[in-house]
Amino acid sequence: MKTRDNKPRQRFPVESLRLKRSGTVAIFRQLEEQLRDAIWQGRLKPGERLPSTRQLASELGIARNTVVSAYEQLSVEGFIHTHKGSGTSVAKNFPPPLKNIPVTRDKTLTNTSEDTSVFAHHLQHLTPIERLIPNKDSLPLRPFRPHTPACDQFPRHIWTQLTTRRLRKMPRSWLERHSPAGNKHLREAIAGYLGASRNMLTSPEEVFVTAGVQQAIILLAKLLINPGDTVCVEDPGYTPATVVFQLAGAKVVPIPVDQHGLNVDFLANRIKQAKLIYVTPANQYPLGVSLHQTRRKALAQWASQCGALIIEDDYNGEYQYRGRPLTTLHTTADSGQVIYLGSFSKLLFPALRIGYMIVPSTFIKPLSTLRWLVDRHSPPLEQAVLADFINQGHFARHLRRMRTLYATRQASLVSAAKKYLNDVISIEAKDSGLHLIGWLAGGVDEKALLFSAQKAAIDLLPLSEFDLQSNQKPGLILGYAPFEPEAIETSAKKLRDTFAACSR
Amino acid sequence: MKTRDNKPRQRFPVESLRLKRSGTVAIFRQLEEQLRDAIWQGRLKPGERLPSTRQLASELGIARNTVVSAYEQLSVEGFIHTHKGSGTSVAKNFPPPLKNIPVTRDKTLTNTSEDTSVFAHHLQHLTPIERLIPNKDSLPLRPFRPHTPACDQFPRHIWTQLTTRRLRKMPRSWLERHSPAGNKHLREAIAGYLGASRNMLTSPEEVFVTAGVQQAIILLAKLLINPGDTVCVEDPGYTPATVVFQLAGAKVVPIPVDQHGLNVDFLANRIKQAKLIYVTPANQYPLGVSLHQTRRKALAQWASQCGALIIEDDYNGEYQYRGRPLTTLHTTADSGQVIYLGSFSKLLFPALRIGYMIVPSTFIKPLSTLRWLVDRHSPPLEQAVLADFINQGHFARHLRRMRTLYATRQASLVSAAKKYLNDVISIEAKDSGLHLIGWLAGGVDEKALLFSAQKAAIDLLPLSEFDLQSNQKPGLILGYAPFEPEAIETSAKKLRDTFAACSR
Repeated sequence: MKTRDNKPRQRFPVESLRLKRSGTVAIFRQLEEQLRDAIWQGRLKPGERLPSTRQLASELGIARNTVVSAYEQLSVEGFIHTHKGSGTSVAKNFPPPLKNIPVTRDKTLTNTSEDTSVFAHHLQHLTPIERLIPNKDSLPLRPFRPHTPACDQFPRHIWTQLTTRRLRKMPRSWLERHSPAGNKHLREAIAGYLGASRNMLTSPEEVFVTAGVQQAIILLAKLLINPGDTVCVEDPGYTPATVVFQLAGAKVVPIPVDQHGLNVDFLANRIKQAKLIYVTPANQYPLGVSLHQTRRKALAQWASQCGALIIEDDYNGEYQYRGRPLTTLHTTADSGQVIYLGSFSKLLFPALRIGYMIVPSTFIKPLSTLRWLVDRHSPPLEQAVLADFINQGHFARHLRRMRTLYATRQASLVSAAKKYLNDVISIEAKDSGLHLIGWLAGGVDEKALLFSAQKAAIDLLPLSEFDLQSNQKPGLILGYAPFEPEAIETSAKKLRDTFAACSR
Repeated sequence: MKTRDNKPRQRFPVESLRLKRSGTVAIFRQLEEQLRDAIWQGRLKPGERLPSTRQLASELGIARNTVVSAYEQLSVEGFIHTHKGSGTSVAKNFPPPLKNIPVTRDKTLTNTSEDTSVFAHHLQHLTPIERLIPNKDSLPLRPFRPHTPACDQFPRHIWTQLTTRRLRKMPRSWLERHSPAGNKHLREAIAGYLGASRNMLTSPEEVFVTAGVQQAIILLAKLLINPGDTVCVEDPGYTPATVVFQLAGAKVVPIPVDQHGLNVDFLANRIKQAKLIYVTPANQYPLGVSLHQTRRKALAQWASQCGALIIEDDYNGEYQYRGRPLTTLHTTADSGQVIYLGSFSKLLFPALRIGYMIVPSTFIKPLSTLRWLVDRHSPPLEQAVLADFINQGHFARHLRRMRTLYATRQASLVSAAKKYLNDVISIEAKDSGLHLIGWLAGGVDEKALLFSAQKAAIDLLPLSEFDLQSNQKPGLILGYAPFEPEAIETSAKKLRDTFAACSR
């Protein structure tokens, strides 16, 4: 290559172009990129003339069409102008480079604590949330991780069959926009199921499909809460709900929970006005107790008196091992008082991000607007497959199987804990749920125990992470649902051994 | 049935039970429900004795096991207590009914304007949002609905094939929790595609998968905005983004748009400090113009000077009909300055709720926490199928086909409009997008035209619905992508005829 000093009006430094003939990037694109950068960075000045395509091709020893292609794209993008007769030049009016602003990459945004919002910063320090989030494609599943069903028991072949069938006869309209309230068939299937199995009087027009319970809570918070509104929550309780209410500007009041569930006397004595109360009556999160019937009645009366809405999160409500699932508050209380939340994530598999809420039909329209603003709607194919899964009886059948299985596995946990960890924790069988609380025995150092568990590759989630103001006695949330009895036994023994070794 | 007056301690009015033998509800459940209601409503008093299962069965003329079953469930639920020897009685401590609170159903929540938040109330009156939301399972697709691709052209058989294949070899871990940042394969596929086709330098670690662009905007607003922060938006612009920024408490400043895109001079003269600017440089929403190259450079310089982040929503960026898609701001500007948003909804099909953003890798962790809090993650199966669709070249192939098709359909719209609507609107061909703006001719009454369209079952979205402060001259957003040339021609003619008839 040689410079073109003999042409004064065109000072373009062709020698600055570096084309790699052996690379993966096409020559025309390399040329285009380098010219673009030179113009953007001000090395080629506004109005400056460029060599003709013929000249440049010859100097670079490349095909003329390659230069034509690069010039064409740069022209479409407005970097250069080609005028018949007067040749090609850099677009005029390109702003000159700023002084004192170094042109370096990745200088902004590197320190997230400076750039992000107070809320995001705060959120990063919520440990119970952090440790629940998989940072790889999936978390290793090991005892005693709570809040997880037995995915290996899910009838995947049926799900696959139903999906394939739906896919084959999917009408074109499925590819288009869908109702934010949910697929018609799924709304019907849910209302039907709740009527038949849970004794709930509801209609498809009251079912609003969501991407799980968490999204239902977010939508309700947006729909209902004005800044300063009082929202009562359980303490200890489901922290991710509390965070959502706080984010909506609510004044969140923690109400203590004891062995009969929410302390409604405490509630009724302290709180005379509230917008909402969020409860998990079937299987309190995280204590696992169910809300006593007399307290349910008192709660409904309190809500009537102070005009509060009850959000009933039926957490683990289907996992009842004695008798049938408990009657919901939605059924017993005045129906206008209670919004019912259900999820399929823990009943079928966690990756299925579909839940729902039962709301007064007048709420469907504003909730649809909100959902549309948030993420439009849930995936239509998954919704339809789930509807088929429910309607063909697979759902009820799977739940029945899981109830039997989980009851057995709970018994394994209790017996393993009594056998190996009797000095460390005390544990009691329950009629429901996917986990039990292991209360720490007197004198056991929680930190040392957690450290031992980490060493032994065992998941122990301390109860204290879900405390708001209450100081529960120390305990552990022990999941059993996805683990074989042998794994439960082995892990209990390993925890005992490691803890003993560490304590020595 | 007879009353049991001979037993003073047990005043249970058996005659109040009404069991339907021919109904669909099992007898034991009817019994259980009616007893439950009686206790809940206080017709059966706390501590009151119930007949023995044998007595009740004989009086009702039903099997004893039926009564046992009902009593058992009521006992599990805590409504009644059974003590060996002393029989069965209603649980003590049930709160007596409140006075002056009528026990009626559905009295709360019926008036949404009283119960819902100010925000939700406000949202209901945002007409441009309202009219975009399908309230049935899908909206009828008719000219000239904008923002919609040609779903009938999507290679559904390939998508079905890929889905079936993935389903068949899906490992169990797929059913478990997934990373909120997105499926590894999809993040790799997106980074690869952007590098190869869009000339963007990015890595999978900078890709964050979302449930569409709207969710990306919401997550960014939560991540970045503190109340009172300045956020600049285009005017007219994408209203649903504006609403999100307002909701986050930002001070939203509308910046006018002209035929060269955002008026950056106006911006630089007025705004000396801002947190964010949201722009659609490839194909301005809704005007369809692309941001002039000199303005892009000035925008990047303005952002450097005032420390603002640029959110580049690459709206319709792939739909470029002359040359290749325009180089993105993310490529030309300092990469730390620009967050890039992409979506698959308008490239493949709207029901596919998958989009993504390219962010500095330090943002992935806080964004994951936020996404987890919002709805956990996108469906793993759809993510994997999309990754396959991209990696096997179907994505690029489909886009190429659609570019050719849409260019033809745009030409049909221009020619039909010139043929039939020349007195009503003026329209100009463009190199990009899924819609054109039809500017109303002088003297044409917009309201009358919209009324005619409604009468003729034609969708006309007025430009004015996306105005913030600017008063654009009146125009219509005319979509062409999903419509056959014949449908475009017929609709243009029908609109002309109806409008002529109405104006007479």
